[in-house]
Amino acid sequence: MREGPPLDDRAFTIDAFHRGRFHLVQPAGKGHRAGLDAMLLAGAVQAGFAGALADLGAGAGAAGFAVAARCPEARVLLVEREPEMVACAQESLRLPANSALASRIEVLQADVELSGSDRAKAGLAENAFDFIIMNPPFNAAHDRASPDPLRRQAHVMDDGLFERWLRTAAAMARPGARVAVIARPASLAQILSALEGRFGSPRAVPVHPRPGVEALRIILRARKGDRGGFALLPPLVLHGETGRGFTARADAIINGREALFAD
Amino acid sequence: MREGPPLDDRAFTIDAFHRGRFHLVQPAGKGHRAGLDAMLLAGAVQAGFAGALADLGAGAGAAGFAVAARCPEARVLLVEREPEMVACAQESLRLPANSALASRIEVLQADVELSGSDRAKAGLAENAFDFIIMNPPFNAAHDRASPDPLRRQAHVMDDGLFERWLRTAAAMARPGARVAVIARPASLAQILSALEGRFGSPRAVPVHPRPGVEALRIILRARKGDRGGFALLPPLVLHGETGRGFTARADAIINGREALFAD
Repeated sequence: MREGPPLDDRAFTIDAFHRGRFHLVQPAGKGHRAGLDAMLLAGAVQAGFAGALADLGAGAGAAGFAVAARCPEARVLLVEREPEMVACAQESLRLPANSALASRIEVLQADVELSGSDRAKAGLAENAFDFIIMNPPFNAAHDRASPDPLRRQAHVMDDGLFERWLRTAAAMARPGARVAVIARPASLAQILSALEGRFGSPRAVPVHPRPGVEALRIILRARKGDRGGFALLPPLVLHGETGRGFTARADAIINGREALFAD
Repeated sequence: MREGPPLDDRAFTIDAFHRGRFHLVQPAGKGHRAGLDAMLLAGAVQAGFAGALADLGAGAGAAGFAVAARCPEARVLLVEREPEMVACAQESLRLPANSALASRIEVLQADVELSGSDRAKAGLAENAFDFIIMNPPFNAAHDRASPDPLRRQAHVMDDGLFERWLRTAAAMARPGARVAVIARPASLAQILSALEGRFGSPRAVPVHPRPGVEALRIILRARKGDRGGFALLPPLVLHGETGRGFTARADAIINGREALFAD
């Protein structure tokens, strides 16, 4: 029998990640299911990371779990607003398959977009984290917007999502802490603008589905207190010219054997 | 004998580009000599381009000559502030080796950073060009700045260079005209900000010296009147893991056999 909030078993699945090194309880519906984005975001944390990491907009906890699985000295706080997703994360922490990780992972139900004293009251501690990773709900803005793809992209650029999320990240970050964001390339200008005065030396890895095809994601890392300019690192290509298999490097990152950034 | 402004022969060289398809008179001193950046910028013009193109900050004219050499229906205006470089471009137009191109290339001595009626008086016609290419003097800001590389990059982000250059480009561009810029990745935020409200659907190609090494340049194209968001295209890699030779694609672009953008 499960403890905690009652979950209807038929509406949830238990999925293996990192080739079985951890499992996640997730809603069976397609909308919120974690996958590639969360695994790539977790890959932004350098090998050997030790300290406190916050996963903002954690969903069922996939990225935070993946960091905990790969970095044995990481302590992870999953921050998620939706009660159903928080319940999933809590269920995942009770799975015997995750017992090796559970003591290093906590879950907080809170809205990342809070500010000032409301944010502190919600439990989002200031100046307390060494690494903050975020997968902001950029597809939500996307879904609300015009069916015209060009207008839709422009809309995503304007809605202040990254400004609000990076404001919270900057408050939670210790001096010298890193932030990592996964987003669509169309959001790059908004992200760079929101980083200004908060995190410096942003470095982005474009993620291309195949060689010769435009990037569908960027994974961007920056550091609190740094003042350096933007750098564009070599891309990650997920698949070859044809076929469904991952490239060797993508497979290593997605399955927690390798980090996306060297240090 | 040469006509036009007197040039000291010892201080100039005549260099072949596109494997001898055109030649350029250039100062022998290292500072202003054209090379890779100009050839890559010229590569941003799609095959078959026909119409009026302005090369802003043309120097000795390398990028503009390269477009004229590859696109037989292009008419090119080279815009350059420095009299010595203008004289070089004029000398190049008189070289017998360039006779096939000279009728399609003009030179204008003018400061790209002028605005309003000063700009029009200087001969920078409004609403008159189908394509504008620019290689702004980003290394000048760089040289003036702090020896600390991080502060230097931040400085380049702040000095308004791209704002002034893209303001002029937007004034000179016809509706639907394209602009192409070559710059350092650290300038991307400043470029995207300066494009806003002027040119849309910016698409950037990162240029990496070798696989696995961060990009040293971006070549970015956008279109007047478009409203789409930023896209990141597959990178151009100049060399292999080792050696001095160019990759096949870089060689084709640098030598005018291929364009960097498909259309």
